[in-house]
Amino acid sequence: MLKVGIYGASGYTGQELLRLLIGHPETDIMAITSRKFKGMPVSEVYPAFAGMTDLKFVDSSPRQLVSSCDVAFLALPHGEAMLVAPEFVAAGVKVIDLSADFRLRDVSVYETWYTKHAAPDLVEKAVYGLPELYRDDLKNARFVANPGCYPTSIILGLAPLLKDGCINTSSIIADSKSGASGAGRELQLGSLFCEVNEGFKAYKIGSHRHTPEIEQELGRIAKTAIRISFTPHLVPANRGILSTIYADLHSDMSESEIFDIYEKFYGDEKFVRICKPGTLPNISSVRGSNNCDMGIAVDGRTGRVIIVSAIDNLVKGAAGQAVQNMNLMCGLPEDAGLNHISLFP
Amino acid sequence: MLKVGIYGASGYTGQELLRLLIGHPETDIMAITSRKFKGMPVSEVYPAFAGMTDLKFVDSSPRQLVSSCDVAFLALPHGEAMLVAPEFVAAGVKVIDLSADFRLRDVSVYETWYTKHAAPDLVEKAVYGLPELYRDDLKNARFVANPGCYPTSIILGLAPLLKDGCINTSSIIADSKSGASGAGRELQLGSLFCEVNEGFKAYKIGSHRHTPEIEQELGRIAKTAIRISFTPHLVPANRGILSTIYADLHSDMSESEIFDIYEKFYGDEKFVRICKPGTLPNISSVRGSNNCDMGIAVDGRTGRVIIVSAIDNLVKGAAGQAVQNMNLMCGLPEDAGLNHISLFP
Amino acid sequence: MLKVGIYGASGYTGQELLRLLIGHPETDIMAITSRKFKGMPVSEVYPAFAGMTDLKFVDSSPRQLVSSCDVAFLALPHGEAMLVAPEFVAAGVKVIDLSADFRLRDVSVYETWYTKHAAPDLVEKAVYGLPELYRDDLKNARFVANPGCYPTSIILGLAPLLKDGCINTSSIIADSKSGASGAGRELQLGSLFCEVNEGFKAYKIGSHRHTPEIEQELGRIAKTAIRISFTPHLVPANRGILSTIYADLHSDMSESEIFDIYEKFYGDEKFVRICKPGTLPNISSVRGSNNCDMGIAVDGRTGRVIIVSAIDNLVKGAAGQAVQNMNLMCGLPEDAGLNHISLFP
Amino acid sequence: MLKVGIYGASGYTGQELLRLLIGHPETDIMAITSRKFKGMPVSEVYPAFAGMTDLKFVDSSPRQLVSSCDVAFLALPHGEAMLVAPEFVAAGVKVIDLSADFRLRDVSVYETWYTKHAAPDLVEKAVYGLPELYRDDLKNARFVANPGCYPTSIILGLAPLLKDGCINTSSIIADSKSGASGAGRELQLGSLFCEVNEGFKAYKIGSHRHTPEIEQELGRIAKTAIRISFTPHLVPANRGILSTIYADLHSDMSESEIFDIYEKFYGDEKFVRICKPGTLPNISSVRGSNNCDMGIAVDGRTGRVIIVSAIDNLVKGAAGQAVQNMNLMCGLPEDAGLNHISLFP
Repeated sequence: MLKVGIYGASGYTGQELLRLLIGHPETDIMAITSRKFKGMPVSEVYPAFAGMTDLKFVDSSPRQLVSSCDVAFLALPHGEAMLVAPEFVAAGVKVIDLSADFRLRDVSVYETWYTKHAAPDLVEKAVYGLPELYRDDLKNARFVANPGCYPTSIILGLAPLLKDGCINTSSIIADSKSGASGAGRELQLGSLFCEVNEGFKAYKIGSHRHTPEIEQELGRIAKTAIRISFTPHLVPANRGILSTIYADLHSDMSESEIFDIYEKFYGDEKFVRICKPGTLPNISSVRGSNNCDMGIAVDGRTGRVIIVSAIDNLVKGAAGQAVQNMNLMCGLPEDAGLNHISLFP
Repeated sequence: MLKVGIYGASGYTGQELLRLLIGHPETDIMAITSRKFKGMPVSEVYPAFAGMTDLKFVDSSPRQLVSSCDVAFLALPHGEAMLVAPEFVAAGVKVIDLSADFRLRDVSVYETWYTKHAAPDLVEKAVYGLPELYRDDLKNARFVANPGCYPTSIILGLAPLLKDGCINTSSIIADSKSGASGAGRELQLGSLFCEVNEGFKAYKIGSHRHTPEIEQELGRIAKTAIRISFTPHLVPANRGILSTIYADLHSDMSESEIFDIYEKFYGDEKFVRICKPGTLPNISSVRGSNNCDMGIAVDGRTGRVIIVSAIDNLVKGAAGQAVQNMNLMCGLPEDAGLNHISLFP
Repeated sequence: MLKVGIYGASGYTGQELLRLLIGHPETDIMAITSRKFKGMPVSEVYPAFAGMTDLKFVDSSPRQLVSSCDVAFLALPHGEAMLVAPEFVAAGVKVIDLSADFRLRDVSVYETWYTKHAAPDLVEKAVYGLPELYRDDLKNARFVANPGCYPTSIILGLAPLLKDGCINTSSIIADSKSGASGAGRELQLGSLFCEVNEGFKAYKIGSHRHTPEIEQELGRIAKTAIRISFTPHLVPANRGILSTIYADLHSDMSESEIFDIYEKFYGDEKFVRICKPGTLPNISSVRGSNNCDMGIAVDGRTGRVIIVSAIDNLVKGAAGQAVQNMNLMCGLPEDAGLNHISLFP
Repeated sequence: MLKVGIYGASGYTGQELLRLLIGHPETDIMAITSRKFKGMPVSEVYPAFAGMTDLKFVDSSPRQLVSSCDVAFLALPHGEAMLVAPEFVAAGVKVIDLSADFRLRDVSVYETWYTKHAAPDLVEKAVYGLPELYRDDLKNARFVANPGCYPTSIILGLAPLLKDGCINTSSIIADSKSGASGAGRELQLGSLFCEVNEGFKAYKIGSHRHTPEIEQELGRIAKTAIRISFTPHLVPANRGILSTIYADLHSDMSESEIFDIYEKFYGDEKFVRICKPGTLPNISSVRGSNNCDMGIAVDGRTGRVIIVSAIDNLVKGAAGQAVQNMNLMCGLPEDAGLNHISLFP
């Protein structure tokens, strides 16, 4: 059994990770930390866990956690993960960081979009944790930067087209929509029920911090620098991200040709499901699961391809992908503990 | 491995049963039937199942199903289950009927609230499938009438008080609230999104068909005939039933005395969770799980006890309880395939 | 034109009052105050108001407001209203207080359920602002204690039965359900979208502060002290309160007899709508309007009458009723500015 | 007082029209028709109307309606409006058709996207009812084709940029999101609460019937043929359309330059509100109102302008705009009966 710990486990992502790890056949959870809730049983903070675990939040130092764990998940806000990651990595513990701190390979880009980096030397050691693209690297990785939720949906959506060079790389527009859990459990006016419910809005157009991460990874696939337009929106639902991605095709291609490219690219992937021609994904079909569903449409009238991808932002967009990475890093079956069928309705 | 089949598997309850049985470690699903969708893969009717099963709906006769199955689940509307149950039972297959057809032991009561009974002789053979009350009977049962969703929440809520004789049995009021999946997937005006969303209403006050079922079972526990007031309501949420149950206490009792009674009654139960004194359940904490959460309050000013119970209507209120019954009938661990942690948020 | 001001106008109730007063044909809004948002245009705090008003929040003292207003609405939290009400009242301005501070006629009861009262002498001067019961008093009132949202729904629901002495006054149970705006715009964990959405829960069973207000008013109608069981619940919807109220009938009565009592009691009321026999109200039918819809059911099997009442908590439960009171106090048509048809869906 | 009738008044749009016309100071409603509900009071079909009107649905022929009305609103499905419009028009009644039947000026385009046209000769007589663009024509119009909901949001969003020639007309992408009332009150699986709630999906990518209407009108403004990519999505909310519209700028322009263009174009418009720089619209701020809110963003990194427009699909997207058109056609103040402040929350 793997001994695992979650550092910063009291947010929506942390508790989702806990849900998945409790159900994982090969993990023992040694510790979960939370400064805010230290001493409290998880079940008092999240009643869903009553009877399912006796774990209590502790306020351990990284050092304490390190000594008991084979794998540490960091589920901290960006800016905080980089303060503790070095100690975990130095101790030889396998680390999966769910924050943005080690996703951007160019420290100056990180510092432009986020803040001064506290552990710039560690950046190059982190493997970007998107198994569908970097599986082999992840199998040998000791330190993984788990992708952002929006980036996961967009990068997976575009990878086959970019790999095959079918699209104009300066034409990409990603119009993404996220459920409210993406904003976390912090107390913010914009997260109140009455502010979100029966509403729908765009926010941070062209300025969301996931933009450089998306561009970095699309550029790696395309082997050329890429700039995209990225617009996030807030959906009045708990979970789910749906990204509608537009790009100009270099030449006339039919839906079935594009479909073949996706089938080939993702044919063996456990967690990517290509929707049948003529059908499109819905976030309600991936809720609670680690799947990324994708629909393909070609608009022959305008020469554009439109890819629609749907994930659960807390699972494939965060905690589920982190577990998938752990499985790879530790030689376990990639889908261990991740075989949930989506909860519908 | 148990060979199981679902007769009438295309409704919300049927697909939930399928979700649970696919994840169950000891079952092989031999067939799922649907007249409406025959020939179609489940994943076309419920995209959540894509990649998780290759099952297709078939339009088999009971006879065909009988020959291949050890256990048959009937997830048909009331009035239809009683037409096919006899054949299943006669063939020696273990049957779990999720309809109301065999829950009422007095056929005349059934016929008053429902319709003419087509298999009255079979009624006495059915065991009422509430494991927390009838576990021993269920272990030997070959034919189980799976309880209704509202009755499950109310009977579990009141059983300890009735068993101990603490309450005035003519004072019981159950004010229940159900998510929209309780109405099924039929096309009805009242089930449209715009009719349910941002709405809340009571319906069928004093005349809901679950009333005699609740009264029958409460009466069995109390060993006296009981009449209750039962008011169902529609909550703008997908899943969940919360029942707020009122009764007059015979004498002054503290919350902690009542709490002790519940702890004693349900102490070892895997799927009943008594909320700590001062806390109350929420349907969001049982979503997707087979748990029944219960909160206890005593209103000293009025001499009443108020019990609040919460279940997922599709799980503990239907499919999950059916699997729990199957486990008991077949000698499996009672919680096999039912260890899901609720999906929150 | 009446000159009106709103003291404490930035909460959900305050902005609803503003919506109604802007649309009112006989009012000029002189000032709206908010310490938090002083200097900001309303439309920056509530974009719905863009282009509809140029009003900005000011941080005036009561004195400043008093000099410019004929009528002052106090939309402050309880405990704060009693600090400023005396100055308004002393200055001869007509005051409508939407807080709980002057609803309870017995100061000791107030102090038991709330906090020490800062203006106990003023309590007896306040008229309880439920027009359907106290219309004549309100026409001459200069100081009105606007009823709570839950109390409005429950008192209106029971008044005819209590007036006619049809029910056992010790048998009353009010099971109420409120939309999330009832909790206001404060930042609280329990008000976050992900905590409310897809959830349903009871809270403060037997201990909600509206209890003594309800009991006081029911007692006045019945001319005897009354204790009730009151359970509030949280509905995942923005607006609306639905109260399901149970009471034992003294003698056999038919639904149509009860119906006649209600028709007679409320026959001329503009804002009370009795649902036709066999139909029941829904909060979605009163959204945005000042109506209280009521449904009647008799459960002959148990000898109980069940009244279901529905209001919009922000309108008839707060701001709309306040305007109705202003209309009465100032000799305007009672429904001036209140003729909105509910917004559905 | 204008005598008005609604032909086909029982859908969500029809009842919304009724809500607005009852509140309109200058209209008398002579008749509302519905084959399905003939003889029934509106309040039985929509309880929100109880006490607000005694109107009953009738099953009149156009002839009967014609004789009593100055203005007829046709709120029928496409394909049906064209069967009755000729009789209304021939009789000299002013007609506002809310269907798609007379929006497309090229009958062959209509027949490609919809069905065979039954009244092709009438097409050229219809004025496209978008007041912000065609106000003068509408003042003299006797027959108006009321715009579609998606087209209203997109055409208003792009008009200033196209008028000024700032964007590449082949680069336009409109990513639109609509609440569930857009699908009407018909019984469809995809409209059930459990199918919509907690879901989000795209549908009819590149093939929605509003596409040619949008392209026709954008082309008229730009004076050149235009092809766009249009993707509609379904939001789990009752009302509202938010369109996120992307286009390539011909040259570097700042947000404030674009803002000026919009301010100039819409400066005097009553129902268009340009959001302050740095802020973006939300459908919750236009709910129940006839406003169209617009936000502007320039993505300097990619040279794109992004316009976000929000309307209530049932008001500015249908019934409200129809009333606005009636006001113009009949010489009334353009905003008569349309001064509702949005209902929030």
